[in-house]
Amino acid sequence: MKQNIYDNPVFFKEYISLRESGVTYNDFVEQPAIKSAISSLKDKSILDLGCGTGHFAQYCIVNGASRVMGVDISRNMIDQAKKKNGHEKIEYICTPIEDLDLHNQKFDLIISSLAVHYIEDYSQLIVKVKSLLNKNGEFIFSTEHPIVTARNDMKNWVKDSKGNKLHWALDNYQEEGTREQHWYIDGVIKYHRTISTLLNTLIDNGLILEKIIEPQAIPSGLVQMPKLVNEERRPSFIVIKSRSLS
Amino acid sequence: MKQNIYDNPVFFKEYISLRESGVTYNDFVEQPAIKSAISSLKDKSILDLGCGTGHFAQYCIVNGASRVMGVDISRNMIDQAKKKNGHEKIEYICTPIEDLDLHNQKFDLIISSLAVHYIEDYSQLIVKVKSLLNKNGEFIFSTEHPIVTARNDMKNWVKDSKGNKLHWALDNYQEEGTREQHWYIDGVIKYHRTISTLLNTLIDNGLILEKIIEPQAIPSGLVQMPKLVNEERRPSFIVIKSRSLS
Repeated sequence: MKQNIYDNPVFFKEYISLRESGVTYNDFVEQPAIKSAISSLKDKSILDLGCGTGHFAQYCIVNGASRVMGVDISRNMIDQAKKKNGHEKIEYICTPIEDLDLHNQKFDLIISSLAVHYIEDYSQLIVKVKSLLNKNGEFIFSTEHPIVTARNDMKNWVKDSKGNKLHWALDNYQEEGTREQHWYIDGVIKYHRTISTLLNTLIDNGLILEKIIEPQAIPSGLVQMPKLVNEERRPSFIVIKSRSLS
Repeated sequence: MKQNIYDNPVFFKEYISLRESGVTYNDFVEQPAIKSAISSLKDKSILDLGCGTGHFAQYCIVNGASRVMGVDISRNMIDQAKKKNGHEKIEYICTPIEDLDLHNQKFDLIISSLAVHYIEDYSQLIVKVKSLLNKNGEFIFSTEHPIVTARNDMKNWVKDSKGNKLHWALDNYQEEGTREQHWYIDGVIKYHRTISTLLNTLIDNGLILEKIIEPQAIPSGLVQMPKLVNEERRPSFIVIKSRSLS
């Protein structure tokens, strides 16, 4: 299933409003972690899988990348990206990641920010990523942490009668597959995979693991979004950095 | 702190009785997983960190290992090992893993079964392991899963009034350090570390990650210990295989 929630008008409006606020998990937890994992952007060719409105593509160019290809399933996102983050060194392509066919193109760095949990066939994705990496190329991605996606009903914080968070409810860890969630709209589908599946699939396809990050909030994030203190109690995301030696 | 619960007479008696029953998490979950990760034992020199009563050392010899060194902090354990699993190709040493000093000895395989969560300084352990591995040598260890060790009070299964397990309570994930537990005796200390710490410390010390296993019970285990079905809900253990290329 190739899910395109971002072209749902209700979702898109809410999502853009959230991201433009600059006060999000992305801004204070996920993006700082994924950026910290990048060795260098200078003169690199970059593929961004699930590029959204092109903020990261623009960030790459500002930091010296030679070219960026941004891929997204959503026509709304790609239109915004071209409008707000267009650049002669950036090419935006509107296609599901699963259908991307770039023939013999290769990249020095492939990034994917919070898109992998929407993709059903993780193994096929990693085969594709490996085939698109130059020798010594890096693949860095973030995804929702398996601790977060595990429980079938995705009801996680258990609270007391006053609304205080008592603990995080985990269950169904080994049951990989779909999880359905309400996020602005009903029926948002994510795929739960275990830590071992996330990592072994990379290893089995010839990628070397270089770093695992379970990020906490940056200090300014804790000030602007006090609830991010809960990232200490359970990580929302995991960032995985790997490298192709061949 | 070098903890030696195994020389506490109450603990030792209960532990030996449990292990001799053959109906344990070790038999049905952890040992099958750790054994499945071993490439080969044939003609290999092996170091077993936390060897207990020497079952695994004996298993190595039966499967063709050239020599085994078994290390354990407990005099009780080492005495049992020599008595029950003695062999001319096995050397048992009674010392805390932290104090082990083997000068220039090297091994093809270093194994550690459920001992790492008792060791305070994980980084120092990994430096030592790396120094003791031959080129291409493997380090395979099991430890309690961070999902299990995370919550400070280690009260994990939340049950309804009838005793049914509702979910697993997780908390305090990013707070690495001691966790205290009652296990036959009060005050058993374990060390919680995150997934990222467990893995990055290996990578940062020059070891290549080869496999991560979050084991479930083997089929015969589910028959003899029906509660092992709960391993599907959350993994008790994690097994990590790495290799030294230099």
